[in-house]
Amino acid sequence: MNSKNIYNTVAIIGGGLIGSSLLLSIKENSLCKTIKIYDSNSDVREKLKKIIEPDNIFTNIEETVKNSDLVVLCIPVGSMKETAKKISKILKAGCILTDTGSTKSSVIDDIKSHLSEKTFFIPSHPLAGTENSGPEAGFANLFKGKYWVIVPYCPIPIGIMEDFRKFLSGTGAIVETMKPDYHDKILAITSHLPHLIAYTIVGTATDLEDQTKHDVVRFSATGFRDFTRIASSDPIMWRDVFLNNKEAVLEMLQRFSEDLTYLQRAIRWSEADKLEDLFTKTREIRRSIIKEGQDK
Amino acid sequence: MNSKNIYNTVAIIGGGLIGSSLLLSIKENSLCKTIKIYDSNSDVREKLKKIIEPDNIFTNIEETVKNSDLVVLCIPVGSMKETAKKISKILKAGCILTDTGSTKSSVIDDIKSHLSEKTFFIPSHPLAGTENSGPEAGFANLFKGKYWVIVPYCPIPIGIMEDFRKFLSGTGAIVETMKPDYHDKILAITSHLPHLIAYTIVGTATDLEDQTKHDVVRFSATGFRDFTRIASSDPIMWRDVFLNNKEAVLEMLQRFSEDLTYLQRAIRWSEADKLEDLFTKTREIRRSIIKEGQDK
Repeated sequence: MNSKNIYNTVAIIGGGLIGSSLLLSIKENSLCKTIKIYDSNSDVREKLKKIIEPDNIFTNIEETVKNSDLVVLCIPVGSMKETAKKISKILKAGCILTDTGSTKSSVIDDIKSHLSEKTFFIPSHPLAGTENSGPEAGFANLFKGKYWVIVPYCPIPIGIMEDFRKFLSGTGAIVETMKPDYHDKILAITSHLPHLIAYTIVGTATDLEDQTKHDVVRFSATGFRDFTRIASSDPIMWRDVFLNNKEAVLEMLQRFSEDLTYLQRAIRWSEADKLEDLFTKTREIRRSIIKEGQDK
Repeated sequence: MNSKNIYNTVAIIGGGLIGSSLLLSIKENSLCKTIKIYDSNSDVREKLKKIIEPDNIFTNIEETVKNSDLVVLCIPVGSMKETAKKISKILKAGCILTDTGSTKSSVIDDIKSHLSEKTFFIPSHPLAGTENSGPEAGFANLFKGKYWVIVPYCPIPIGIMEDFRKFLSGTGAIVETMKPDYHDKILAITSHLPHLIAYTIVGTATDLEDQTKHDVVRFSATGFRDFTRIASSDPIMWRDVFLNNKEAVLEMLQRFSEDLTYLQRAIRWSEADKLEDLFTKTREIRRSIIKEGQDK
């Protein structure tokens, strides 16, 4: 945890919530000697000046990744392919490339064919985030106590993997390893489907007539309010997630729809037992989460 | 807000989260001279002894409501009818009866025919609660800053209504008035449907094979965890809510299902614009909620 300066130079591509939080965490935990951050958006770069010296902020992506030992792509999964194409030729021999995308099979497909054999691509995904986006939402402790999943798709030399794990642990994250397909399946149910449903129900509410919509906002206290928080997450990031984890999301959505239809029918026919049985069962899952310490 | 002892004797029927919180709030804010609480469950009565003198805890419901000036039914909405039948003959002339149920049309139907003309039934609903249940979960500030909706279905003398509002405000709640049907519609979308959906998705996860289920629990950090919190709410209370607000819940569920199918199709056919449009729109609702101060 306390190993300092694991890398000489780290380049962060994308200064949003994840990129800026990683920047702050690297600084706070002295995880590298030189840090570089790139964002294509001038507003974002302007905001980044509040948290880091202007010299560390780059307007040219090639300049950013050149000579870096670790490059972290903190961009929407839909932009991975194009970005990989741009930087692949410039990455130095021995460079480690990782990403923080919420879908892994698609990112691997989009990136691996563009890389030379001299670079090591280790896909990863920090299970951390808030409903806020942009560099102003970033904070150094975002990853602390959260899982950061490594999703290797090919063998990586032990020493290189060791350093990378040390780096991730240095942010306070708990490092785990998963296979790409399994990651995408787990995320489909723990993150992607909940977001899709939250977006849907908040969307359903926005279509109500004006007075009702106004009162829905006023009286949102129990239940709905949590959904609106989830449904205020970054639109571009989430659009890309659904388009890039289509198969797993659609499968989980199909199961969910069947289960919802079952409950709908139970309500229509006043089948009290069916409702009570399910509502009792779901309490158990909550208890398991509290036991795992994942309730914070 | 600071009027003390608005009533001589208040009887609370049901010592769960709402009943015990009301008890604590009444004590802390000195809202009546004598307080009585009844629960049919001996475990609950035992736990109540930790927060109030044994003399205030009753095992006989008739004894509890007799000579009380205000009777508050803090029980599942499915038990209202039977309870109203039991106590209607015993309520003293001029007694005010209220309830805290999450559905109002059904509760009015279940209670009003059993009452004598000498009692005043003012249905109400505090928009407050947590996912925890039982007297050990109660706390005096549960209602502070939350809406407590009064849902009258017939004219109530002004003085009586004034006192009742003063009493509710005394708990720290913001008092609002609504019509029964409208209340039930607003609650269907802000509370009932979100709970139904949370129960469903957590149920969908419990049906996954064991290893996957275990990992869903471990990696529940973003999204799913919020759903499990909602889906750990009291099973009996929620079973009754769905069965007693059937029409409004089924209507909202129908709208929700249509909207979800629309998104499902957009994902399947990679219609990026449709996803992005909705995800951008839903952010607005969140902003309105933050503006209304209902985000806490």
